[in-house]
Amino acid sequence: MKTIAVDAMGGDNAPKAIVEGVDQALADFSDIAIQLYGDEAKIKSYLTATERVMIIHTDEKINSDDEPAKAVRRKKKASMVLGAQAVREKKADAVISAGNTGALLAAGLFVVGRIKGVDRPGLLSTMPTVDGRGYDMLDLGANAENSAHHLHQFAILGSFYAQNVRKINNPRVGLLNNGTEATKGDPVHKEAYELLAADTSLNFIGNVEARDLMEGVADVVVTDGFTGNAVLKTMEGTGLSILSALKSSIQSGGARAKMGALLLKPTLYNLKGIMDYSDAGGAVLFGLKAPVVKCHGSSDATAVYSTIKQVRTMLETKVVDQSVAAFTKVEKED
Amino acid sequence: MKTIAVDAMGGDNAPKAIVEGVDQALADFSDIAIQLYGDEAKIKSYLTATERVMIIHTDEKINSDDEPAKAVRRKKKASMVLGAQAVREKKADAVISAGNTGALLAAGLFVVGRIKGVDRPGLLSTMPTVDGRGYDMLDLGANAENSAHHLHQFAILGSFYAQNVRKINNPRVGLLNNGTEATKGDPVHKEAYELLAADTSLNFIGNVEARDLMEGVADVVVTDGFTGNAVLKTMEGTGLSILSALKSSIQSGGARAKMGALLLKPTLYNLKGIMDYSDAGGAVLFGLKAPVVKCHGSSDATAVYSTIKQVRTMLETKVVDQSVAAFTKVEKED
Repeated sequence: MKTIAVDAMGGDNAPKAIVEGVDQALADFSDIAIQLYGDEAKIKSYLTATERVMIIHTDEKINSDDEPAKAVRRKKKASMVLGAQAVREKKADAVISAGNTGALLAAGLFVVGRIKGVDRPGLLSTMPTVDGRGYDMLDLGANAENSAHHLHQFAILGSFYAQNVRKINNPRVGLLNNGTEATKGDPVHKEAYELLAADTSLNFIGNVEARDLMEGVADVVVTDGFTGNAVLKTMEGTGLSILSALKSSIQSGGARAKMGALLLKPTLYNLKGIMDYSDAGGAVLFGLKAPVVKCHGSSDATAVYSTIKQVRTMLETKVVDQSVAAFTKVEKED
Repeated sequence: MKTIAVDAMGGDNAPKAIVEGVDQALADFSDIAIQLYGDEAKIKSYLTATERVMIIHTDEKINSDDEPAKAVRRKKKASMVLGAQAVREKKADAVISAGNTGALLAAGLFVVGRIKGVDRPGLLSTMPTVDGRGYDMLDLGANAENSAHHLHQFAILGSFYAQNVRKINNPRVGLLNNGTEATKGDPVHKEAYELLAADTSLNFIGNVEARDLMEGVADVVVTDGFTGNAVLKTMEGTGLSILSALKSSIQSGGARAKMGALLLKPTLYNLKGIMDYSDAGGAVLFGLKAPVVKCHGSSDATAVYSTIKQVRTMLETKVVDQSVAAFTKVEKED
């Protein structure tokens, strides 16, 4: 039995969406137990599960506008911090939150702690491709800057994730760069290219460009946190802006456009499904001693459910333990 | 009368689309003359204009897979290089090409030359927003890395462009960063924030995030060349992937979807127009002694026409001369 700590108070739809997602997951997966951290009365009003679930009451929570590191240091009884603390004390195997991303990163780093040998954990998400296969990208913004050595570690971590959680054999690793030629990029990316090419444990396919990501050019895409964050936000912004432009264009297009939209509804819905990758779960702060996973702030019950499912797979496949073993080996060789 | 040198041999549809764009521009604008560089016989088969146009024949051209700097050094008679040479020798006032981007950047830097005081010219484009107003972003990839000082120069150059070419009064300048708070980013972006905030000649509105660009969060967006390149390619890739997913979704959606698409055709066409910003012209390598402008490789005659119109506005408003004066002043104050 694996135990997952869940911050019931984080995110726009908390605690309702969080608790409903937990209800669904407990019904579907008989091999997990859940600890819910937060306001007991509020949690109880949504909780239907009766077995393998435990509420740990707390009045404190971290708000979306709290300064992350400070909030984690000072709000020691916040639902998110108590969840991370449970992992540290081995009372839980993983922690999930839809709350303040920066605070969860800080709780992950300072409370759960890094794998020995991993210098900088990276934020990893499974991103959408047109064919539905997806790819894993890191770092999406846990770091404001990275060295070539960090990028090499991201490649190793990303490969473990793709192999274990997404069952991709010998995943193709690409380095996000400003051109596909081997000599492209700033000094950090040029050096990272050399490190990745020299590592025979990786299936490194070379540099990839941002314009080819949604076409599935690689299974794992490695990038520094600054660029990864910009690319992630550009994808979100472009996708949302196009959909909203389509919507307002339909609204101003008269009866003809409205009829067309009605007929196209299943098609447009399908399109929205491609852009919405919450089925793949949340963003993992990968490189820590246990899974620490961020659900999107606007997560509904289904997204929370998917994230619990994702964490369950991470625990089942022991992807973190494998990473620990790999980095211990590297440490010894150094 | 202003004279614009045009590389007739660059781009996927050269020389047809290039020459047809020139024909249109010469018919509409009686105050410009055009020099066409390339294969005389081929150019003549498309050229209808008879006045204010001159063909300078050359057999040599730069290919899309040529190594940029080397090609510019060795192919001294290439159509693109001759065009840049004409600007250097004051026989033309600006140069346009739809060919190899790297080679045009090299020709701009080494043949046309930088404005005194501008350390690194930046690639500037007018990018699409949902409301159609657009924003000017630089650097889109002329540089693989930039200092905070370069970013400050981009802000000054971008403001001049928005004011003069796009007639935006007191343009709002945003710094692309990984969060909106003043303290966000790596050391380069933190320092850039300080430099921009201290420059009272700029209407600096602070950090902006990539997800808000298409919503028109700023009139000028300043970024380093590595990030700018990644963001530009992400926008292109996301837009194209969504449209192609929509298309294949319609094709597999049966009669209902096809009828819907037919009714929605004007609406979808409108949407495509939002993503296609070729009306705003090409990408300017800004910070050089004269306008050096890149048309998209896949440009049709209309895109070439729009780029000639854009260059004409740059020459009319003397935006380069104003930049020269501004940077001369800064140099003297230093």
